[in-house]
Amino acid sequence: MKEQFYAYIQNLQDTITSTLEELDGKAKFVEDLWKRPEGGGGRTRVIENGNIFEKGGVNISAVHGKLPEAMQKNLGVSDSEFFACGLSLVLHPKNPMVPTVHANWRYFEMYDDKGEIVTQWFGGGQDLTPYYLFDEDAVHFHQTCKSACDKHNPEFYPMYKKRCDEYFWNAHRDEARGVGGLFFDYLKKTDEFSLQDRYDFVTEIGNSFLQSYVPIVEARKELSYSDSQRDWQEVRRGRYVEFNLVHDKGTLFGLKTNGRIESILMSLPPKVQWHYNHTPEEGSDEAYLVSVLQKPKDWV
Amino acid sequence: MKEQFYAYIQNLQDTITSTLEELDGKAKFVEDLWKRPEGGGGRTRVIENGNIFEKGGVNISAVHGKLPEAMQKNLGVSDSEFFACGLSLVLHPKNPMVPTVHANWRYFEMYDDKGEIVTQWFGGGQDLTPYYLFDEDAVHFHQTCKSACDKHNPEFYPMYKKRCDEYFWNAHRDEARGVGGLFFDYLKKTDEFSLQDRYDFVTEIGNSFLQSYVPIVEARKELSYSDSQRDWQEVRRGRYVEFNLVHDKGTLFGLKTNGRIESILMSLPPKVQWHYNHTPEEGSDEAYLVSVLQKPKDWV
Repeated sequence: MKEQFYAYIQNLQDTITSTLEELDGKAKFVEDLWKRPEGGGGRTRVIENGNIFEKGGVNISAVHGKLPEAMQKNLGVSDSEFFACGLSLVLHPKNPMVPTVHANWRYFEMYDDKGEIVTQWFGGGQDLTPYYLFDEDAVHFHQTCKSACDKHNPEFYPMYKKRCDEYFWNAHRDEARGVGGLFFDYLKKTDEFSLQDRYDFVTEIGNSFLQSYVPIVEARKELSYSDSQRDWQEVRRGRYVEFNLVHDKGTLFGLKTNGRIESILMSLPPKVQWHYNHTPEEGSDEAYLVSVLQKPKDWV
Repeated sequence: MKEQFYAYIQNLQDTITSTLEELDGKAKFVEDLWKRPEGGGGRTRVIENGNIFEKGGVNISAVHGKLPEAMQKNLGVSDSEFFACGLSLVLHPKNPMVPTVHANWRYFEMYDDKGEIVTQWFGGGQDLTPYYLFDEDAVHFHQTCKSACDKHNPEFYPMYKKRCDEYFWNAHRDEARGVGGLFFDYLKKTDEFSLQDRYDFVTEIGNSFLQSYVPIVEARKELSYSDSQRDWQEVRRGRYVEFNLVHDKGTLFGLKTNGRIESILMSLPPKVQWHYNHTPEEGSDEAYLVSVLQKPKDWV
């Protein structure tokens, strides 16, 4: 399974980066290959200063070795060997009318003394963070997520949509990071689902990503915007930074286990603002976004 | 003691904000009074878009009530009543030649069932974060800290200087946040020092603050700078954000215990940048700063 999924994310990275380059029309992804001293490594691809994408990364990695201490605690095991691979992407468009998107799909294995697999699972999801909210974009994003889920089980979409709203919650601000999407984890073999079923589901979601996001970019990329709309985007990007550095388990885990800092923090937006007590005007587009983020909606 | 120290920080806030307003010559501090639902409140004073100060806050607060759960764990006690008051300040100048400064001086009391004080201590410190490093500024800042410390005990400066270097360490970047200063905590009554001695020490440090910082601002505020020097400042401010949101105990404690978010996050810089793998040119002023941050120096 690990070869199968790693081959899948390698191909998916190629597909996504070539599609986004074509869409952007100016900037190209720059590739960095890196090795992890304790075992494994990754292929980081970063795009900057494009027509559409001000900053973004589409990264894959496959790492193995002794389970880091922080993770032993989390999983309630002592020192085991593990393997993990995944694709992570974050795209920060320049135009505040185009939403930021994040996605991650990953696979994990843990072994006993004899090198036999004792547990293995998939995890991941994708979520959308608009600065100006066009309801139909949120509907389209969620509809694409739902259609992909529904091919596998009608309970998946409502369950993973809810988990996404719960996970991407900026608790100290009492608001969601964005309009959500999907979040799932620990998808193991069960009586109902084989590991291959899990693989088929996660790759279905991964394959649906471009369809969920590219049409939104195309619909919004030519919209004009003012300096003050751009300021609003940069202020909201501050909330994105707050979520990633204060609450995001993946980011904090990476920072505390000697992960590759630049690959992890490529998720941070290029230009960000913090003002004291910044509050949007009542009845404005900005206030509408905040009201939706304070009370996650069902979009489909 | 609590009345004595709270009166002190009220006066100190007035002295600092009036001096900084005069120095800035354009922007005025805007005051927000706030109440904490569980007991107490604060007086937040924020300055924005000044001639010198792009953003900053000089805040005092005095809070009391049941010890928050997160703090019970830290202190190894069950639900006790507490009182805490302090002054916190952060100043982010516009000109990258002028360093950012942070300071905090605080007093804490905890009570038994009968309302008797069971423990009480002072804590605090101040530290300097330059974007372009003028060695003589770091020397002046540290010399002022040392002179204030030396009036009380010759061991204080070396001890609290070292703790400052250890505390303001951006572990995931393997570098200091800035060039340090002082950091002390749990200054209790001992055989050697009365609580009044502790008060005298902490207020000596608080009183030395303007002398440690204002001459540096005066020496650098008229220096010209280029767009790329300003970009470097904004990139380095990103490291400031990373420290405050990932490592700073005070910030995280505030965010997780329903503190007043806007008063806590006034510490974040107004405009910040993150680029992928940003590395200064060898031999440049920017590279010199980084080399010093990677290996904290003795300045006096």
